[in-house]
Parts: sequence; structure tokens; C-alpha cells
Amino acid sequence: MKVRVLIRLRSSILDVQGSAVKRALGGLGFDDLDDLRVGKMIELEVRAASPEAARGRVDEMCRKLLANPLLEDYTVEVLPAGDLAQARAGR
Amino acid sequence: MKVRVLIRLRSSILDVQGSAVKRALGGLGFDDLDDLRVGKMIELEVRAASPEAARGRVDEMCRKLLANPLLEDYTVEVLPAGDLAQARAGR
Repeated sequence: MKVRVLIRLRSSILDVQGSAVKRALGGLGFDDLDDLRVGKMIELEVRAASPEAARGRVDEMCRKLLANPLLEDYTVEVLPAGDLAQARAGR
Repeated sequence: MKVRVLIRLRSSILDVQGSAVKRALGGLGFDDLDDLRVGKMIELEVRAASPEAARGRVDEMCRKLLANPLLEDYTVEVLPAGDLAQARAGR
């Protein structure tokens, strides 16, 4: 089962890396940006009997290791079998 | 317009960070993982007239700064207005 975890800094935490990238883009002429934040993506292939089981398992991984709950929020997305691309928004 | 960029190492490139995280999870008893790769997520708020314009603009940012085309692949997702959560898969 393919699972994607998106980890972002909590909105109350200053995103220094995001600010730096936003400024660099501004320097290249991209001044139509209102906000930019940088986060992490982790894509996993988990052996699980159901999407719910996979989600539960990965949620446990996030709580135990992948995310820092003091600084970060995360979302877990179970992707349609075999195709990461199908989960893309904005089709 | 909210746009999300997902940046991953090309599949031909060894993901050292991903291997380390996978091993750390194995050490915590998570041995049901077949694969784990770590990538970057960048979430932007772009001023654009249409989703297509936003996507084109962010694609240009990726080519010029955000991604390294030698090492990385990226996908650009335009998210439904005002709600990042709606773009989550596995609902």
C-alpha cells in the first residue's frame, strides 16, 4: 500500500527556509508570491491488509519517529494502488 | 491560489536519508515497510488569474530554482481554494 506523509512546520513556527526561498524567488522576478512554506514528504510502501490499517500504521510511525509534534503537523494520505500520480490534485 | 510542489529524488538516485529512516523504523519494530523515500514539499500561495496560470508560473519556479533537474523530479498540484486538506487522498 502506497502512503504519503506530508510534514509541515506548525503555522505558529517561523519557517526560515521558506522565507529564504521566497526571497530568492523574488530576486528572480517571481514577485507574485504571497506565501511559501517548506516541508517534508515521505513516501512509503507498507504491507497492510487495508487502507485503514496502512493509515493507522503510518500514523504510529509519525508519532514515534517521523514527525516532531512540538514543531510539526503531519497528514497521512493513502494513495490509490500502484499510482502515486493519481493522487495529485488539480487534474 | 494555493499550489503544492512535491520534489523527489529521481528513482535512479540512491536515497540515503530514506534508507536511514527506514532502518530506524525497523529498529522500532516497523518491519512491514517495503520502501521509504524522503522528499521535499513546498506549499505556495500565488497570485494568478487561473489554476492553469498558477501551475505554469510554479512550474517555471521549479525549473529555475526549486528543483534540481539532474537529481530530482517534481510534480505541481494546484489545490482547491482555501483548503489544503481537500487535496488529501485516501478520504
